Amino acid sequence: MMNVADYMLDVGKAARRASRVVASAPPSSKNAALAAIADSLVANAEEIISANELDMREARSKNIAAPLLDRLAVDSKTVHRMADGVRAVGALADPVGAITDLAYQPSGIQVGKMRVPLGVIGIIYESRPNVTADAASLCLKSGNACILRGGTEAFHSNKAIAACITGALGRVDLPPEAVQLVQVTDRAAVGALLKLDEYVDVIVPRGGKGLIERVSRESTIPVIKHLDGVCHVFIDDRADVAMAIDVAVNSKTSKYAVCNSIETLLVAQDIADAVLPELAARFAQHCVELRGCVRTREILPEAAEASESDWREEYLAPILAVRVVGGLDEAIAHINEFGSQHTDTIVSEDLSRVRRFLREVDSASVMANVSTQFADGFEYGLGAEVGISTNKLHVRGPVGIEGLTTQKFVVLGEGQIRER
Amino acid sequence: MMNVADYMLDVGKAARRASRVVASAPPSSKNAALAAIADSLVANAEEIISANELDMREARSKNIAAPLLDRLAVDSKTVHRMADGVRAVGALADPVGAITDLAYQPSGIQVGKMRVPLGVIGIIYESRPNVTADAASLCLKSGNACILRGGTEAFHSNKAIAACITGALGRVDLPPEAVQLVQVTDRAAVGALLKLDEYVDVIVPRGGKGLIERVSRESTIPVIKHLDGVCHVFIDDRADVAMAIDVAVNSKTSKYAVCNSIETLLVAQDIADAVLPELAARFAQHCVELRGCVRTREILPEAAEASESDWREEYLAPILAVRVVGGLDEAIAHINEFGSQHTDTIVSEDLSRVRRFLREVDSASVMANVSTQFADGFEYGLGAEVGISTNKLHVRGPVGIEGLTTQKFVVLGEGQIRER
Repeated sequence: MMNVADYMLDVGKAARRASRVVASAPPSSKNAALAAIADSLVANAEEIISANELDMREARSKNIAAPLLDRLAVDSKTVHRMADGVRAVGALADPVGAITDLAYQPSGIQVGKMRVPLGVIGIIYESRPNVTADAASLCLKSGNACILRGGTEAFHSNKAIAACITGALGRVDLPPEAVQLVQVTDRAAVGALLKLDEYVDVIVPRGGKGLIERVSRESTIPVIKHLDGVCHVFIDDRADVAMAIDVAVNSKTSKYAVCNSIETLLVAQDIADAVLPELAARFAQHCVELRGCVRTREILPEAAEASESDWREEYLAPILAVRVVGGLDEAIAHINEFGSQHTDTIVSEDLSRVRRFLREVDSASVMANVSTQFADGFEYGLGAEVGISTNKLHVRGPVGIEGLTTQKFVVLGEGQIRER
Repeated sequence: MMNVADYMLDVGKAARRASRVVASAPPSSKNAALAAIADSLVANAEEIISANELDMREARSKNIAAPLLDRLAVDSKTVHRMADGVRAVGALADPVGAITDLAYQPSGIQVGKMRVPLGVIGIIYESRPNVTADAASLCLKSGNACILRGGTEAFHSNKAIAACITGALGRVDLPPEAVQLVQVTDRAAVGALLKLDEYVDVIVPRGGKGLIERVSRESTIPVIKHLDGVCHVFIDDRADVAMAIDVAVNSKTSKYAVCNSIETLLVAQDIADAVLPELAARFAQHCVELRGCVRTREILPEAAEASESDWREEYLAPILAVRVVGGLDEAIAHINEFGSQHTDTIVSEDLSRVRRFLREVDSASVMANVSTQFADGFEYGLGAEVGISTNKLHVRGPVGIEGLTTQKFVVLGEGQIRER
């Protein structure tokens, strides 16, 4: 039996070799691969569903919670959605090789930037087997090889999906090692992957906070991480009241367990009386518990009492902290201090205040007069996302195929040499 | 006496606060600061030179090597050059706040990207006191606060330069804490700085390999690092012979101790007889020692014998490894295996081969028909550089003010809410 570290080293080396091939593969060849993968998923739907049944049976025998079972389940509809997703990635514009800003410099050399793949991307994820197809297709389209480490609970499902992918790659003459699923469930495989800095260029963890913290701590490879989403709506006193209420309610209630759902609502004191009672009624219809500051509770005595720890809390549940602030300055200061630099919205008709909010709130997505729940790769026109980054370097917010690329300098001349 | 870790924590907190102010400072205010800094450097030239004399005396008493003394020395000309550098940064276009790609999405929301400062930048550097003024002005122009940790050997010089900077900031009503020089020489200050991940967004080390490896190992903050420069010239058999010789000679001999100097020359076998004897003669004039592969030594029997370790060596000296390769494929494979992904040039008149070289060589700067020694922020039109990145994520190659910024998403609407 092979040692896990040696196995992962071989996976890393094979990925690096394959990455050279996919990096210079023409768009037609990558698109042919994506079409073949989509076809293969549909053709092998029965095998995938049977493999998933093995995972589901095991999960049930371990009394895994119902929402997790839901996320694990794959049926014929899921397989078709996966295939559609792969085809949609194929239809995106190819980002690789685009040269921009090519301009002459005083020396006569011409300098520009070429968009190129990162190389090898390691993706570590939990539960949902569709991530196997989604992530593989985004990596492939952006010219990267990938190493996929799915959750143990989805092992059989992921294996069946990965088999479709590697088979399809072989049929279009791309190296099957461009998409490798880690074939051991041993947790040590994750540790070994995180140390393969010579062969892996970036790690993208997708899952709970525990996973992301472990990956950030152990990895010697740069991590595109997605930590908390403590998002805010700020209702300015020059807001349209009806719009403010709709945006605040939608930003919380469209979905609770997502990172772009708000956790704290900030209301300017001069509009608090006009919006809070109606907001409380709307939230009550959704059974959202409100936790308010002192001034909030003067208007809404039925609200629970918020403590400072509430301003930092990512509830991911029907609970909302509410704070009345003096105005824009206090709102920006609150968001920059307690928020998680994820997604924040102002509702206001005052252009100068909107401009300041957009500029001064230091978050990956800053919005005016829209629900925070739009913070999403599809809604942003990125096609699909491999995750939402809370990093500041490289890429912030939803990460699409462009986030899986980088730029190198291209320099052209006619024999220029440098005089010192 | 204050504990070093506590001192650094205070520095970090003050930098974060100041960063909020400079991030939203208008271009006119940052430019006024840069002009005031330049004036102050010139006005205080004598104080700076006296402080430098203290450093020089101490350095001489420690018998520090002559090239290091040269790099440490500051005279009136150096001060004026520093001031000119600061004014040149002032004249650059302001990158902050630029919104690009603002486009409507199917939901009716408008999504774009805004260029914003990274926040707080920690710069750790050795020797040259001019880095204090260069780095501070680049950080300021890009809307960042910075924490500067210079070398102990330049402590008095750096302090005098930093005093000019903070004085000037105060006079234009920007927070002096936007540029903080670490005021303790204790090495523990570096260790403490590298753990301030809550207050510092990126670390830029500038110095020898030892420093950069230590920083990369210890830092919990992302590092823009600059490791080896194992650069190549590849002379294709469709090269213009005279151009090939000039480019190869200049790429090595313009300066030896710089990262964009080549360490290995690759020559296509069909042109080796035509270029190697002339190249050997030209390199002999510069007293460059050649270390050749077997085929090179068939043509140049006087060359020393190269071993595989020579292909990985960053000599930073008048030594050059020479390898004859079959052609383009072998050249690309050699560079991607042995190079350091820094800067590589092809000399060829064959457009298809140039296109493949530019695309397939995985380096920060890929060039055709120019000397590698052009890999430099000024030559690229970036104005100035804070370093040369060998990272793949965020920024590759010379890092100018744009490399000290990031992009956030800006989303505008008229009350859109998301239906699921």
